[in-house]
Amino acid sequence: MGGQVWVLGVGMTPFGKWESKDVAELALEAARAAVADGGLEPRRIEAIYFANSLCGLLTGQEAVRGQVALRDSPWRGVPVVNVENACASSSAALHVAAHAIRAGEYEHVLVVGAEKLTHPDKQTTFRALAAASDCGREGGCAAPEARSVFMDYYAAVARRHMERYGTTLEQMAMVGAKNSAHGALNPLAQFRTARSVAEVLQSRLVVDPLRLFMCSPIGDGAAAVVLGNRRPVGSRRAVCVLASALRSGTVDGADRETIARTARAAYERAGCGPDDLHLCEVHDATAIAEIVSYEALGLCAEGEGGPFVESGAASLRGRVPVNPSGGLIARGHPVGATGLAQCCELTWQLRGEAGARQVEGARVALAENHGGLVGDDVAACCVTILTA
Amino acid sequence: MGGQVWVLGVGMTPFGKWESKDVAELALEAARAAVADGGLEPRRIEAIYFANSLCGLLTGQEAVRGQVALRDSPWRGVPVVNVENACASSSAALHVAAHAIRAGEYEHVLVVGAEKLTHPDKQTTFRALAAASDCGREGGCAAPEARSVFMDYYAAVARRHMERYGTTLEQMAMVGAKNSAHGALNPLAQFRTARSVAEVLQSRLVVDPLRLFMCSPIGDGAAAVVLGNRRPVGSRRAVCVLASALRSGTVDGADRETIARTARAAYERAGCGPDDLHLCEVHDATAIAEIVSYEALGLCAEGEGGPFVESGAASLRGRVPVNPSGGLIARGHPVGATGLAQCCELTWQLRGEAGARQVEGARVALAENHGGLVGDDVAACCVTILTA
Repeated sequence: MGGQVWVLGVGMTPFGKWESKDVAELALEAARAAVADGGLEPRRIEAIYFANSLCGLLTGQEAVRGQVALRDSPWRGVPVVNVENACASSSAALHVAAHAIRAGEYEHVLVVGAEKLTHPDKQTTFRALAAASDCGREGGCAAPEARSVFMDYYAAVARRHMERYGTTLEQMAMVGAKNSAHGALNPLAQFRTARSVAEVLQSRLVVDPLRLFMCSPIGDGAAAVVLGNRRPVGSRRAVCVLASALRSGTVDGADRETIARTARAAYERAGCGPDDLHLCEVHDATAIAEIVSYEALGLCAEGEGGPFVESGAASLRGRVPVNPSGGLIARGHPVGATGLAQCCELTWQLRGEAGARQVEGARVALAENHGGLVGDDVAACCVTILTA
Repeated sequence: MGGQVWVLGVGMTPFGKWESKDVAELALEAARAAVADGGLEPRRIEAIYFANSLCGLLTGQEAVRGQVALRDSPWRGVPVVNVENACASSSAALHVAAHAIRAGEYEHVLVVGAEKLTHPDKQTTFRALAAASDCGREGGCAAPEARSVFMDYYAAVARRHMERYGTTLEQMAMVGAKNSAHGALNPLAQFRTARSVAEVLQSRLVVDPLRLFMCSPIGDGAAAVVLGNRRPVGSRRAVCVLASALRSGTVDGADRETIARTARAAYERAGCGPDDLHLCEVHDATAIAEIVSYEALGLCAEGEGGPFVESGAASLRGRVPVNPSGGLIARGHPVGATGLAQCCELTWQLRGEAGARQVEGARVALAENHGGLVGDDVAACCVTILTA
């Protein structure tokens, strides 16, 4: 039931530390770029889905974040829905926006994800990030010194994976090295320096076993996507949304299970499977998260994520390039913008517009975005599949 | 395009000051009531749309509010989308949830709005409420002493209305008196004492010309609605969603214009007009807001809102009873719960289950919910029309 959904335009800001830009400036830059990329008059946008996760705690702006961010824009007066789902905020916004298109409510909508994480006091940023867990129970949203509480979570996942499957520190470093090499080819990436495996291994310890270059950085940025209900006549650039599946964690709670369940729902909806994918963008908040994603998405068997990256299969010229954009580790991870940044990359790849990091012949591409932690449950996971 | 949407079940907590209950407790109570009222097994719920506006600033919980609130519920693991639109948060959540049903994505979804505004330091609550305006410009989300910044806004609206149309203080007091009388008949209302017009006039001045009993109180509560894609066989209790329209303010920005524009969209979608309505719930954050709503919804002509309430047309036995629940003034206004509380009341009325406050023969009912202020623009307005 419901019609097809097309990605008509995409845009994003460079990701990085933008001390002089606020959420509004970032959001507007990405929104204008996406609408222009779609070749649409701004007035054709009928509704806006705005994703942000931490503005309230970092600037005090709550309740009407999208309306405030787009106050001085061509879209003043366009209905806004503010959507929040931690690191998966903007893929969740795309999820609900796609329903509005499929329902026949709108012909063209704009989805915007924007986040400014940098703050004069870094510890304030880390405390805000902790609000993506259960503040009533897990330490009252206190943050450890000089890092995100999520690094402790991923470090525990990494230790378990190493013990259970023999995954090595070197294999995790290979994820960091690969993504830094991809990011070096992406003009919008926060980090554009390719690092060797040795450099990743030698970088500062964040939480054992995670090293700095295995982790996504603090950063700012915005990304936007225009969705429409039809492919413009004659357009070779529109990309079709085959699936957008959203799930939350279950009682058995391991993050791999939640991602796997979400991916199964998306594959079923799209009528395809892991063997059909030409590339993926996954949620490498840390290197271990990417390794878990390989397994959860079915790119390799359980426990084989380490050997998978070691084989080169996930590299730009490998069997299924993963994170050609550089991923969260190199492109960057401004929380509420990340899911849409993944969809921007998928779209550029499927159009053949990805420049030096182009995956040749890409026709089907998948994005996996997850966020938040409630007890042992991943709070939200969203898997999006697009096709050229 | 897209299928029909049915309200299968509704539930809400009593509204009031619940010092010992947190957002999770309130949300769960309303959610359980709505699902039970719909006669559904909890496992039939496929997705949850969770509305809250100010938790982040009042408790520090951001990013995954719904997942945290429903952590210890039968819905752990069900996908959650967190939706925020100031005082219109939960009607906006219903709006996007209805799209998911119409798109064919889900058969049954749960929409929950929950808010806990009471805080040991009242000024903290007022500061949080100010975050529904533009914090970067309008005083950095500072709040005046001992009141919401929105009371200053509505006071200005009232003064303008009085000057332009000759609306009187007595007419505004009549709104307060009427809603208190309705609230006295509602077991879930925060205030259950009927006040005379004289009592309203004699109550404490909040901001000239608004008196205390013309204003909605600070309070806590939750409301929930189960939506489905079909009317259960043999059910006489399911209610159909004829329209859910969402708009934001425009450049000409007067609040009446935004509400009127939203209402026109809803009437067009529903195929009905103001003369077809048997009752309304409107967003009487203050008495003047209700008077403006009469005009914006077309219940009376521009400038005639004062005489309209004076005529008794909006009273329980009047031509079009407005706010039979007691409205925001008497039922209460826990921000993120208000829009769904209105839909609960509409549903009870359309089913003939509203007890002492029943509007006889109600077949078509409308809810108007608005919130947030960005410059002179109402940030979001949602108009929902239901039919028996």
